[in-house]
Formats: sequence, C-alpha cells, structure tokens
Amino acid sequence: MKLATLRNGTRDGALALVSADLRACLPVADIAPTMQAALDDWGRAEPLLRARADDLAAGRIAGSPFDPKGCLSPLPRAYEWVDGSAYLNHVRLVRKARNAEPPATLETDPLVYQGGSGVLLGPTDDIPLVDPAWGLDFESEVAVILGDTPRGTRAGDAAPYVRLVMLVNDVTLRNLIPDELAKGFGFFCSKPASAFSPVAVTPDELGEAWRNGRVHLRLRSVYNGALAGDTEAGAEMHFSFYDLIGHITKTRAYTAGTILGSGTVSNVSRARGISCLAEQRTIETIDTGKPVTPFMKAGDTIAIEMLDAQGRSVFGRIEQTVAAQ
Amino acid sequence: MKLATLRNGTRDGALALVSADLRACLPVADIAPTMQAALDDWGRAEPLLRARADDLAAGRIAGSPFDPKGCLSPLPRAYEWVDGSAYLNHVRLVRKARNAEPPATLETDPLVYQGGSGVLLGPTDDIPLVDPAWGLDFESEVAVILGDTPRGTRAGDAAPYVRLVMLVNDVTLRNLIPDELAKGFGFFCSKPASAFSPVAVTPDELGEAWRNGRVHLRLRSVYNGALAGDTEAGAEMHFSFYDLIGHITKTRAYTAGTILGSGTVSNVSRARGISCLAEQRTIETIDTGKPVTPFMKAGDTIAIEMLDAQGRSVFGRIEQTVAAQ
Repeated sequence: MKLATLRNGTRDGALALVSADLRACLPVADIAPTMQAALDDWGRAEPLLRARADDLAAGRIAGSPFDPKGCLSPLPRAYEWVDGSAYLNHVRLVRKARNAEPPATLETDPLVYQGGSGVLLGPTDDIPLVDPAWGLDFESEVAVILGDTPRGTRAGDAAPYVRLVMLVNDVTLRNLIPDELAKGFGFFCSKPASAFSPVAVTPDELGEAWRNGRVHLRLRSVYNGALAGDTEAGAEMHFSFYDLIGHITKTRAYTAGTILGSGTVSNVSRARGISCLAEQRTIETIDTGKPVTPFMKAGDTIAIEMLDAQGRSVFGRIEQTVAAQ
Repeated sequence: MKLATLRNGTRDGALALVSADLRACLPVADIAPTMQAALDDWGRAEPLLRARADDLAAGRIAGSPFDPKGCLSPLPRAYEWVDGSAYLNHVRLVRKARNAEPPATLETDPLVYQGGSGVLLGPTDDIPLVDPAWGLDFESEVAVILGDTPRGTRAGDAAPYVRLVMLVNDVTLRNLIPDELAKGFGFFCSKPASAFSPVAVTPDELGEAWRNGRVHLRLRSVYNGALAGDTEAGAEMHFSFYDLIGHITKTRAYTAGTILGSGTVSNVSRARGISCLAEQRTIETIDTGKPVTPFMKAGDTIAIEMLDAQGRSVFGRIEQTVAAQ
C-alpha cells in the first residue's frame, strides 16, 4: 500500500492512497483525514485503507492523476524526527573531512540525533539557501515511520512497529557543523528542514527488498542532472532499522508518526558514487589534497529516487531546487 | 488566561480554561478541542478563549474543581521540544562536574538541544526509573510555547511569537551523558520524557514579572519534602527567550506548539539553592572533594512550582514520584 499527503491548504494536508505505479491517487478522508490521524488509529485505519487500495488497483474505484508537485511531505509535521547514521562508511568519510575521529563505539553503539520535526519540506519544495557560506549539502537517506513504540523495545521485537518506509533528503549546512558540535550539544542550526519522498509505503509493498529491517534496493542521487550516486541501501546498513529502534527506545517511548532515518546511504565501493557532497569532497581531499566540488548554490537541483528490481520508482522522486532567500 | 489539558482518554486530551487561582476549570471543546488545535488557529481561538475566561472569572459560567492529577501536559505531545541552557551558572557548574570546559562562545552563542517531544509526561506522572545506575536527575526550568515562528526572526521581533509560559522538569540521566556526548551527536538516551506544569499561561497573566522575555519570579524545587532551591528565574537568564528564538530561527521555521525551554534555572548565590542534583553534587565536590548527594532513587519525590509576588502558585505544581520499572 502506498500513501501520500496532498496539499489542500491545511497544515497537515489530505491523506490519499497512491497506486503501485504512482499514476493514480485517491483521497481517503472518510477513513482518515490526515496521515497522522491514520497512524494514530492504525488498527482501524489500515484494513480500511488496504481494502480501498485493492479497489483502486482493481479499477473498482477511479483515482485521479497523481502529481508529486501536489504533495506535502507524507507527514508535513511529525512529532519526532530521529536520524541515525547507520552506514559506517559515511561516518568515517565525513569525520575525516572535518578532522574528527569516529567514536570508539562506532560499530556497537548507533549514532542518532534528534532533528527538528515541526516544519518538514515536501518532495518538490525548494531548498532555501540563506547564506552560501553555510555549505549547503543534500543527504540521501531511507526512513521509516513508526507506530506507537514502547520504551524497552528490543531490536528482535521491533518489526511490527515499522508502519511505512520513505526517502529523505536530510538537508545539512556543513560549515555550521564544526562550531555547533564544539559546543557539545549536537546538531541544531546545521540541520534545517528535511524533505521527504512523495509517497510512503508499507513494508510489504517492498516485497523481498525489505529484509531484516533494511531496504535492499539502490538509492539514486542525481545532482544537477548527473548521476552522483547509485548506492546500495541494504548490505552496508550496519545497524538495521530494528537495531536503531532497539537503541532509541532504551530510555523512552515514541508516539505514532515518529520518523526514524537511516543516515546517509554510503557504500565502500567508490563505483557506487555518493549520497552527499561531503563524501565527494572527502574523496577529493584524499586523492588530491583538497576538495574540488563546491557545496550547493542557488539554482542547483537534486533528485533522489529508489527503483525496484524492475526499474520502477517505489516512492516517487524527491526533486528539489536550491533557492536563494 | 490560564490553560490546561485534561485527561479524557485520548492522546491529546481536552483543552480547558483554568481560573487565575487554579481552583476552577472549564472545558472549551466548542472553541478548540485540544491545545494544539487552539495554537494552530490562535487568531480565531484566543479572543474566544479570553471572553470565556472572563465569563469564568466573573462567575457568569460555573467551572468544575480543577485537579492537577487530572491533567496531561499542556501539550501531551509537541511537534518540537527545544531546550536552551540560558543560565550560565548551570553550564559552568555541570561542565565542571563532568570535567568538561564550557564552550568558548558561552556568553555569545546560546546552547540549545533538540529533545524528544512525542511523549511528554503530565505534571503528576511518575518518573520511570529503569536503572538507578543511569543517574536520574530533575532539572527545574521555565518554558514557552511558540506560535508559528518564521525563519530569520530577530530577538527584537520575537515577543509576539510567545503564546504561553509554563514550567518543565527536564528529566536527565546524568550518567548516560558522558558516553553520549563523546559520540559527538548530542544528548539522546540521556534525555528521557520531560514533565510539564498543570497550567500554561499567557504572558500577560504574569504582569510585571514578564519582562524582556524573562520570568522574574522564583522557581521552587522541593526534593523529598525539603526545599532544595528557590532560584530567581529572571535576572541570571543570560539569554532571554527572545534571544533563544533569535538563535533557533537562524536556519529554520517553527510550527505552532513548539516548546522552547530556558535550561535549568541557576543562580550564582548558593543561598538560592539548586534546581538539579548535578549542581548540588558539583558544589559538594568543590567543597569536599567528592559528591555526597546521590541521584534519584525509587520513591523519591520532586515538586516544582513558581509563586507570584503574592505567594500564589502561577502554573500549579509539577509533583512527581520516581517509580522503579
């Protein structure tokens, strides 16, 4: 089942079903007016949504054309946005770029940060660029939306809490990071609003590609029209989404609608390319002594998409342009 | 105007007006079913709420007895919980306790962290204690609830975005902090769910005590029945709430219902006492070479309250017991 949130002039938009081929959509206000309302009452809403999705797929109900430009983020605002950093190659590269050591517990204790979740960008919203000196970067990631998840959930018991899967562009202001982390309280201003894919899908929609809390598909990042990365999101995700759930529930519980991110998808093989410019710049520094690729500037475009084994877009495309403010 | 959220079996509770003396309350579902709904539509809701509050105060409408035990947090879940650390004496003491230096920009660049906001504790909810070795501590703070606040808001323009003021117990697991901060991503597991006062009040309700984005009243922390702190929340708040808004809006905007905290209220004068056990332990270390006061254990109680110049409780009392889990 695929779900989207359509713009309707309200803060939280209108929940809609989307066909598997992303061609048709169908508002479902009679089942749940918003994505959050569906998640808050998933036990009731899910079977109704699935039945309606079957009707849409079978042609028993006609949808209208689906246009990602008419989408807000699946959750235009969320009660939490927790982002991991589960691809260790990314951690190693990015820390090298800022002359910081990876933590000693890199392989055993997941890195996560709490991001701002009250204002999230839609899949085709511009990325605001206030000051080019801040070092604007994209980060292509996978994320899940959780149902109500109790404190003390173990990784082995976490599967039922994953309601939906989607993509994220975790927008980052690289040059604000060093001073901010030096203060000791983690990221804040360096992580402005992130953008999410047009569609969020139930894990079963991914078929065999959803295994052990990982999405075993490739994540394509197209920067200014050129393929920058075609990274494999499954094998090198050191901590699965289940592992991340086991970590974040150590001391507290989560409400339905909490978004949990994978961190930047990153592969050791350079042939796979990159999912953020910081990695590209680090590779250039290793090879030539200094970074060559600049950070993003006004007018730049970034497209992020995941294709299934048959080459069909699973979540639709995050497709953003950097806009000077 | 004073507002509370009453338990009604739903996730977000029922919005109610509370009389100035905290004796009577009046549900206002016809104006806005929940606190978030009122904040989302404040321009419409505020005058209606104020008119109803006038009716309650004048006895034209009868309220029912107000019982803080029947309260959820004013926002049982919020879209963001951003906590500052605006009392520099606290930063200096707590960093000393963990042998960490205050940041070089302590006096010019506010410290803030992004906390979890999806599950917030009510004013009389137990504080869960999973493992006493985690070092459970309270932190008595003031917080404001923001309306929609644009990116780039300057401190001098921030006043209109402060909708409500309340108190917080920012529960902290001290012994989880060093390892967590060593990873470089800030607090996460070390900051479990925080608890909020029974009542949130509009700034005008504070009269002359609300000046320059600070609450000039004393915050009382009573630990296991003994007065631990009677700290002045105004004068030593180095960064006002307006300054904090100016900082947090540097790179992003905030949705209505965002909670912004002051950080632990702390005074240089030892005579004022403490608003968290970590400060007490640091003072003991300075004086005697080692901390004497243990962190919180099962059965401990903490009460947090602010009195006005006439000695009347402004926000009601946070009154929690530590419960082993």
